[in-house]
Amino acid sequence: MADLQISDSFYVKSSLKDKYYVSFINEVKTHFEQSEQTVNNIYIVDDKLKYLFKVELEPLLTARTIYITCDESHKTIDYSQEVIRKLIELGVRKNDSLIAIGGGITQDIVAFISSILYRGIDWKFYPTTLLAQCDSCIGSKSSINFDQFKNLIGTFNPPSQIFIYLEFLRTLSQSEIRSGIGEMLHYYFTEGIDLALQIKNDFEKLLVNRSLLPYYIHNSLRIKKKIIELDEFDTSLRHIFNYGHTFGHAIEAITSYAIPHGQAISIGMDIANFISLHKGMITQVEFDEMHEVLHLNIPPFKLTDSNIDEYCQALARDKKNKGNMLGCILTRGAGKVEKVFVGIDAAFRQLLLSYSATYGR
Amino acid sequence: MADLQISDSFYVKSSLKDKYYVSFINEVKTHFEQSEQTVNNIYIVDDKLKYLFKVELEPLLTARTIYITCDESHKTIDYSQEVIRKLIELGVRKNDSLIAIGGGITQDIVAFISSILYRGIDWKFYPTTLLAQCDSCIGSKSSINFDQFKNLIGTFNPPSQIFIYLEFLRTLSQSEIRSGIGEMLHYYFTEGIDLALQIKNDFEKLLVNRSLLPYYIHNSLRIKKKIIELDEFDTSLRHIFNYGHTFGHAIEAITSYAIPHGQAISIGMDIANFISLHKGMITQVEFDEMHEVLHLNIPPFKLTDSNIDEYCQALARDKKNKGNMLGCILTRGAGKVEKVFVGIDAAFRQLLLSYSATYGR
Repeated sequence: MADLQISDSFYVKSSLKDKYYVSFINEVKTHFEQSEQTVNNIYIVDDKLKYLFKVELEPLLTARTIYITCDESHKTIDYSQEVIRKLIELGVRKNDSLIAIGGGITQDIVAFISSILYRGIDWKFYPTTLLAQCDSCIGSKSSINFDQFKNLIGTFNPPSQIFIYLEFLRTLSQSEIRSGIGEMLHYYFTEGIDLALQIKNDFEKLLVNRSLLPYYIHNSLRIKKKIIELDEFDTSLRHIFNYGHTFGHAIEAITSYAIPHGQAISIGMDIANFISLHKGMITQVEFDEMHEVLHLNIPPFKLTDSNIDEYCQALARDKKNKGNMLGCILTRGAGKVEKVFVGIDAAFRQLLLSYSATYGR
Repeated sequence: MADLQISDSFYVKSSLKDKYYVSFINEVKTHFEQSEQTVNNIYIVDDKLKYLFKVELEPLLTARTIYITCDESHKTIDYSQEVIRKLIELGVRKNDSLIAIGGGITQDIVAFISSILYRGIDWKFYPTTLLAQCDSCIGSKSSINFDQFKNLIGTFNPPSQIFIYLEFLRTLSQSEIRSGIGEMLHYYFTEGIDLALQIKNDFEKLLVNRSLLPYYIHNSLRIKKKIIELDEFDTSLRHIFNYGHTFGHAIEAITSYAIPHGQAISIGMDIANFISLHKGMITQVEFDEMHEVLHLNIPPFKLTDSNIDEYCQALARDKKNKGNMLGCILTRGAGKVEKVFVGIDAAFRQLLLSYSATYGR
């Protein structure tokens, strides 16, 4: 039976769980029916899915299930405590498994609870967004907001199994697809130019047709897997995946997260490339080649005299900084990213403004 | 300089931190003065110590220090969040070290925070109670209460270094010393009879004179180290350290923790031995030999018709049970403990009552 459902599978090595499997599954309802027979499962599900996937989630009606609210304001220790209270009401035991169904926020909440309940309880994950399927589902990180601080709290705690069901993507908006594409692009650019050029050609098709996505998801996970297996706890090599993120996070911060994560990262990569260009690390031709891909995914956003100070302040708060030096990932060409520390000074401020004047939308 | 302060040292192997060191130190004030020069230390100290060890803690006056309230009602996620807020006010960074100074509750709170802040931050520990010095300081466990549930939340997260300063024990009450002795005895009885017989001879001296304690602390840690290095996450071998604990925890629960932990465990071991005797696992001679040691540390407590039901209910809630079977550690003689599942039935209830009728104080 398993053969009918699982189309493809690989594992990720982990120092925390030896290894954990990622399986692409073609059918999810039977999957839930079968796994629901394992009485020690408790499902924790993003409540938005309840109506979007009524048929697929039908087997959970007779299972122990908690529907949770998944937005940034609920990604907290306090909300996690509320969910733990519901787990206790459902009679959770140490040898139960928590089954998370949802996107990155569902993942964060369940992974966090699984880290601290009974000093660790098993969890499995069905990612339902492109961002979660192509990126966050592997890599062990959980992130919880604390007061006004984003992702200050968290643990390293991968699920024991990940099931990717592509049909969950059918209800996603174009904006959510674009966000996933931005995240995938950032992985591709750490390896080379080829996949980015392919995605450029497929870009319009990807927005309207989900059937091309598996190829890109596979490649994104393949690149991430290679690095996280070498540096699971993000102490060295894995830093390269901050490419686009340092500059992207600061955009998210000053726009109150109005720009979806993966699109903010697309601008972030373009900024990192622009700085690399002006440091003589890449040529104009190399910048242009990457920009032609990135600009497809870049939303309207400009750094101007009215927001540049706030932007530089957000960069200055980045936890990867050393003293006053901004720790960011720049590039010597696609596939050749590297960590560089740059001062947040007047010249740097001017460089950012001139990026937006030339390339901002 | 370090040579002058550290009298003895060993390490514990850990899959989480490779290994961590336990050092017995002869002098603590200079130690704090030196380590305080490391600007990335933040001290988290049981506020009871502030006046008890004013001189020793003087160097912390110029350091980043948080005094915390350490009792069972503060061993919570909510109080941990309050402490995290204070850490943020003190400008905590990912590469800082949290330095815990206190007993088991201080340890639990700091270890828990260190597990979840920035996905893990370094911590070091100066245990100040006999229980913490002879037992909890090694073994990686943190335990946090949740609503009415004791130790439901927690993580495995050993400190990177442990400094044992025996003078911290000088202010302990006899009851706290007795509690530590109970915990040490339970380690000794997993190895054999020799150390238990020694402690029997030294018992009265130990209550009034701290100078004999180092020998017993060393041996307790030595026995624990051997097992936790083989089973850090308490999935198999380490279960033997539940000896006395299953029956002891239930005593603590029904007396609202009026009996100190290590003394409840002393009764717990005596009960486990009594059950072992009645199962034919040990002889009356063997029971008596162990009882002669244990009775020195057993406080007044009796199971009678008025509390036996509540006691059996507390046992039935033990998380190590399988269905209705109580998972407990019994003995085939000192040094030969083993896990046994016993039904909580009428005969068992009667056995417990007859234990108290014969041996209860």
